[in-house]
Amino acid sequence: MRVYLDNNATTMVDPKVFAKMEPYFVEMYGNPNSLHEFGSESHPALRRAMDQLYAGLNASDKDDIVITSCATESNNWVLKSIYNDYILNGEKDHIITSEVEHPAIISTCKFLETLGVKVTYLPVNEKGVIEVESLKKSITEKTALVTIMWANNETGMIFPIEEISNICKENNILFHSDAVQAVGKIPVDLQKIDIDFLSFSAHKFHGPKGVGGLYIKNSQPLTPLFHGGEHMGGRRSGTLNVAGIVGMGEALDIAVQNLDFEKNSVRKLRDKLEDEVLKLDDVFVVGTRDERTPNTILVSVKGIEGEAMLWDLNKNGIAASTGSACASEDLESNPVMEAIGAEADLAHTALRLSLSRFTTQEEIDYTVSILNDAVKRLRAISSTYSYAPDWHDSKL
Amino acid sequence: MRVYLDNNATTMVDPKVFAKMEPYFVEMYGNPNSLHEFGSESHPALRRAMDQLYAGLNASDKDDIVITSCATESNNWVLKSIYNDYILNGEKDHIITSEVEHPAIISTCKFLETLGVKVTYLPVNEKGVIEVESLKKSITEKTALVTIMWANNETGMIFPIEEISNICKENNILFHSDAVQAVGKIPVDLQKIDIDFLSFSAHKFHGPKGVGGLYIKNSQPLTPLFHGGEHMGGRRSGTLNVAGIVGMGEALDIAVQNLDFEKNSVRKLRDKLEDEVLKLDDVFVVGTRDERTPNTILVSVKGIEGEAMLWDLNKNGIAASTGSACASEDLESNPVMEAIGAEADLAHTALRLSLSRFTTQEEIDYTVSILNDAVKRLRAISSTYSYAPDWHDSKL
Repeated sequence: MRVYLDNNATTMVDPKVFAKMEPYFVEMYGNPNSLHEFGSESHPALRRAMDQLYAGLNASDKDDIVITSCATESNNWVLKSIYNDYILNGEKDHIITSEVEHPAIISTCKFLETLGVKVTYLPVNEKGVIEVESLKKSITEKTALVTIMWANNETGMIFPIEEISNICKENNILFHSDAVQAVGKIPVDLQKIDIDFLSFSAHKFHGPKGVGGLYIKNSQPLTPLFHGGEHMGGRRSGTLNVAGIVGMGEALDIAVQNLDFEKNSVRKLRDKLEDEVLKLDDVFVVGTRDERTPNTILVSVKGIEGEAMLWDLNKNGIAASTGSACASEDLESNPVMEAIGAEADLAHTALRLSLSRFTTQEEIDYTVSILNDAVKRLRAISSTYSYAPDWHDSKL
Repeated sequence: MRVYLDNNATTMVDPKVFAKMEPYFVEMYGNPNSLHEFGSESHPALRRAMDQLYAGLNASDKDDIVITSCATESNNWVLKSIYNDYILNGEKDHIITSEVEHPAIISTCKFLETLGVKVTYLPVNEKGVIEVESLKKSITEKTALVTIMWANNETGMIFPIEEISNICKENNILFHSDAVQAVGKIPVDLQKIDIDFLSFSAHKFHGPKGVGGLYIKNSQPLTPLFHGGEHMGGRRSGTLNVAGIVGMGEALDIAVQNLDFEKNSVRKLRDKLEDEVLKLDDVFVVGTRDERTPNTILVSVKGIEGEAMLWDLNKNGIAASTGSACASEDLESNPVMEAIGAEADLAHTALRLSLSRFTTQEEIDYTVSILNDAVKRLRAISSTYSYAPDWHDSKL
């Protein structure tokens, strides 16, 4: 059996989404900016996709949704252009973010620091979430931007976005949110919550890789990251990725239709898995269930290196993660676990299990069984876990 | 009959290319950076694609080929990072380009001018090509970069890249080429010609939209445009667009295998079409045939607005262009025609016909017939063309 529990890294393209994309490779391949039928025949599908995106985020017609190649692009765009537009020749010099943002935010902030920008990296509490009080205290007259994720990729913890938004608005500060892990999993209503810029990525909600977007409230100015032709009203140049845009629109539409399913059925499976995981000794899960996206568990299994666990699971056809796939090649400890202050050895024991609407009960049952065996086996050979033959009864 | 003669704007994805891409949407969807089989099962295809790209450009193992989302990204990346790495805190302040570059270069240069960069836009001769003497004269001690396209998107004219490269090397100046219109149409051998950075885009050679690349000689440093995770060795972050990369590799491989076909068969059809076009009175084609990519004709048909011609052709199922699709929405006159010094009214009469290896003899015959009728009809109602009933014999 093959079980994919790494949906926070990327997701399967929904077959219904792929069916919508397929005609735009070989059959209808024109450049939509061309003045002929080969170009214009994709316009209805592009319009539909844009409508789906506006509806899915509940954006207003006054807002812009600009297609990008991924959320990494969207994040780089916002931060670098806020630097260009408000810091470089202005009086502001400060950006506030959190310690647990995605590398696309953290690394971009580190780069902006080399240009003289001051960056505050807000610490997180034991649940991996910032305290709004610390945000309030960090704001100065020179703060140009607050950039805080909507939900964390590793823990699934949902951030207090509405409160953060209110604080930003009270202080007249621009607010960006990397909502990659929220869009398609929980309601993201941009009429209800006042956000200036919001990043999202299709491949996190069963759309294709290589396409994402940036929501821009009230179509406010922002220097392009990609200068060039007049694509997307001059906001982001480059030939439109028609199949990708069509796929992203359809994927968001389906995801939004499935938000209740996500909240109920996916969560039920997640909770079932979590219940079973918590029956093990010496494990802890970050954050309570209500505070998390319905699909995610970040668990620390004491005495077992996350990578060792991954190999055992992988050998049995189960895909999980020790944290962000974007940082997985270097085998470091889980940065969120570190940020929440877990002991150094615990930070190496992180295991992220992230479900999707395609996850089945059978897959969860199988995973529980394999996971139990893996924990038994790996703790038996662990140098950091006191082995007791009857280890279920042992307490350290 | 439908005839697509706008291959310089974008191309049909080769069905063979799409067949290679197809498994990487629904079947093999893992994130290649993940440490499990769902992630690693795409590695052989990714490796094959990268090998195809290195072979297709004859790049060395010491060089980097970095995947981007399009040539617009590649172009923005090089120019903005050369600014960051060599101009911002260095002694250089100057970039040299040409008047006929793609908007992704021109607009980025205009943006860099707002940051204090000095940019020389080299004029072009009556064929739409820069003179190397003017390049030599423009170089100063403060020149950081020369960026000149390999082949022009509108005229198909091939630039003297080897000479330009030699001049740059003699003067120890970095050289970038936007080779979007060359790669896959004519030989691009990066062992033979010394280029520091080279941009290309899959959708111009029968690959998918939304994926391109930047070649970086000797893997030399260049600040990322996309900061983030460790994708592509930290050079360009963002989840890998697996299907797109696989498609681009396959597309380049097939295109390179077809370079002789391009040079002989595509060119033969192009020349046939050009012969017929030149039988019309008062037309001129920019540049001689040997100097152009084998697939392109830019023709001025006196007295006929390019857009009027497009509509007549389009009505009959034929797709052509008045120039770059990237600038087509604003219905301005053709910028290359302007740059080569065509009279203002002529600059509005540009018609670009660009073939591909999928173009057939039958399609060309049909196009000639429709084109002849269109010219007759449109000149009859033209306010700028003296109508003579027997117009084939009239000379203005």
